[in-house]
Amino acid sequence: MKIAIYGYGNLGRGVEAAVRQNPDTELIGVFTRRDPASVHTVTGVPVYAAESVLDYTAEIDVIIICGGSASDLPVMTPMLAKHFNVVDSFDTHAKVPEHFANVDQAAMTTAHTALISAGWDPGLFSLARLYMNSVLPEGRDYTFWGRGVSQGHSDAIRRIAGVKDARQYTVPVPQALEMVRNGENPDLSTRQKHTRECYVVAEEGADKALIEKQIKEMPNYFADYDTTVTFITAEEMKKNHGELPHGGLVLRSGATGEGGKHRHMMEFSLKLDSNPEFTASVLVACARATARMNGRGIFGCKTLFDVAPADLSMLTPEEMRKKLL
Amino acid sequence: MKIAIYGYGNLGRGVEAAVRQNPDTELIGVFTRRDPASVHTVTGVPVYAAESVLDYTAEIDVIIICGGSASDLPVMTPMLAKHFNVVDSFDTHAKVPEHFANVDQAAMTTAHTALISAGWDPGLFSLARLYMNSVLPEGRDYTFWGRGVSQGHSDAIRRIAGVKDARQYTVPVPQALEMVRNGENPDLSTRQKHTRECYVVAEEGADKALIEKQIKEMPNYFADYDTTVTFITAEEMKKNHGELPHGGLVLRSGATGEGGKHRHMMEFSLKLDSNPEFTASVLVACARATARMNGRGIFGCKTLFDVAPADLSMLTPEEMRKKLL
Repeated sequence: MKIAIYGYGNLGRGVEAAVRQNPDTELIGVFTRRDPASVHTVTGVPVYAAESVLDYTAEIDVIIICGGSASDLPVMTPMLAKHFNVVDSFDTHAKVPEHFANVDQAAMTTAHTALISAGWDPGLFSLARLYMNSVLPEGRDYTFWGRGVSQGHSDAIRRIAGVKDARQYTVPVPQALEMVRNGENPDLSTRQKHTRECYVVAEEGADKALIEKQIKEMPNYFADYDTTVTFITAEEMKKNHGELPHGGLVLRSGATGEGGKHRHMMEFSLKLDSNPEFTASVLVACARATARMNGRGIFGCKTLFDVAPADLSMLTPEEMRKKLL
Repeated sequence: MKIAIYGYGNLGRGVEAAVRQNPDTELIGVFTRRDPASVHTVTGVPVYAAESVLDYTAEIDVIIICGGSASDLPVMTPMLAKHFNVVDSFDTHAKVPEHFANVDQAAMTTAHTALISAGWDPGLFSLARLYMNSVLPEGRDYTFWGRGVSQGHSDAIRRIAGVKDARQYTVPVPQALEMVRNGENPDLSTRQKHTRECYVVAEEGADKALIEKQIKEMPNYFADYDTTVTFITAEEMKKNHGELPHGGLVLRSGATGEGGKHRHMMEFSLKLDSNPEFTASVLVACARATARMNGRGIFGCKTLFDVAPADLSMLTPEEMRKKLL
């Protein structure tokens, strides 16, 4: 299976690493909007200009699009789905219907297959919610994120005047998680579910009290949370906060039997040292499924909900039943 | 979707309860090998003789076969798959290839769809292992069962002379689970993974020391485990051990990136008050998928590995993407 990467940031480098763990995949190249001569891949695979991608339709089975959900993917995925099978990790929840429709039209008219919103949330967490809801129709879902770095929240802090660098960790509130695991089915406010820990490197002479106030009062991002702000040095940032860990939990508490007398708790959790590398690993498995579905004449826009799990695996159906069933 | 139950024990009663939680399903009847007049269903659905099942081919979309894996399902599932879409919970791991082949032949030649080995293990745990292995090809799997009642082990104790009743709980060893969660990737022996707790009601005047010795030395069932035996009264058995709880965990510890420097931990767990009711709930969702796949011309023997998750859900694709993605 011949894979290309479109966009070469943290996620793109993660895909490059993941391809090496999947012997049935081969990376034919990286496409970038930057000057290709300025981009050096970790494994030495060739770098091409993004605008030349249509010259490579014969060489590529699936493109993994590693762009941002805000402005890149809404343009890139429909554009590329006209010419290639594609996978993306679109995660702007409210805009999924629009993105789905655009990508579906592009892929369907040209007999391509496009798998959107792959990764872990949306992605594996979505699958956990779907399986859990399907087998326990009467119940309640909870999703917690973290402990992990939120890049969006880190960026929001970096935009404040006087901030040189920032890292924001989203942290589930242990008491809330405990209540859910106990089957108490609590109503939890935003504040009760997660706290936000901010580590900030301030510019020389910046007003730290003002920065802290601006962070804590920032609407949507921080105002609804218990937020802590810790000022650190650039050295501390580099030493202690250089990685991008993340994770989280999906839980469903449900009931069966007469009067719902039997309670059941289902839980799926991830603890990830590297969010981009793990997400990339999911995208590569999804590329495999996308190529296979296309080969069977399944065209248009899909999500992981539409993918038979066997299509994600390197194993044959017989091996899978023997080793994993 | 019109469902029938074939075999009316704990699992069959669980299916009867689960159908009520799934408004798109309807239970048309229960088929039993006992005298139908002697069987009274919880919800009052009609009871028919097992041998009359072929008179109802027009009324049934899917039969959920609630028999045992040892001797019932190897006969029942291929026989019924010739005339109906069927779901079973076949769990004799070593015999899956043979069962799969028999059921596949029966279903394929008559354009039916048969989903075998559904439930939680095999079933949801198998799915967890497949997804985890697909997204983290380099890593190690662990499955723990319990704390829960093993009916096979309870039955084995009951066959000992002088035993009136018995209940056996399988319990994961906390230290083993801790090592796995810490990412230590331990090699664990059978004894290191689980302990076995036995609660036994002895006949009046029975030799308890001999019963305990016979349990602890029983090959395959107990000899390889740290086993505790507690003698209790029939009243205590009824009061404290009347339910069939179970559960367990699937974990995969994997690594990505250069030299595997980033570690990832995935975990799926279940805590179930009622093993048969939860298993039955999975079977009903699987019946939905089986009917849908049959409607699309997907025939033969399948497992949950072959089922697109969306097919298990009552929700429309749009609702699913909006609420669960």
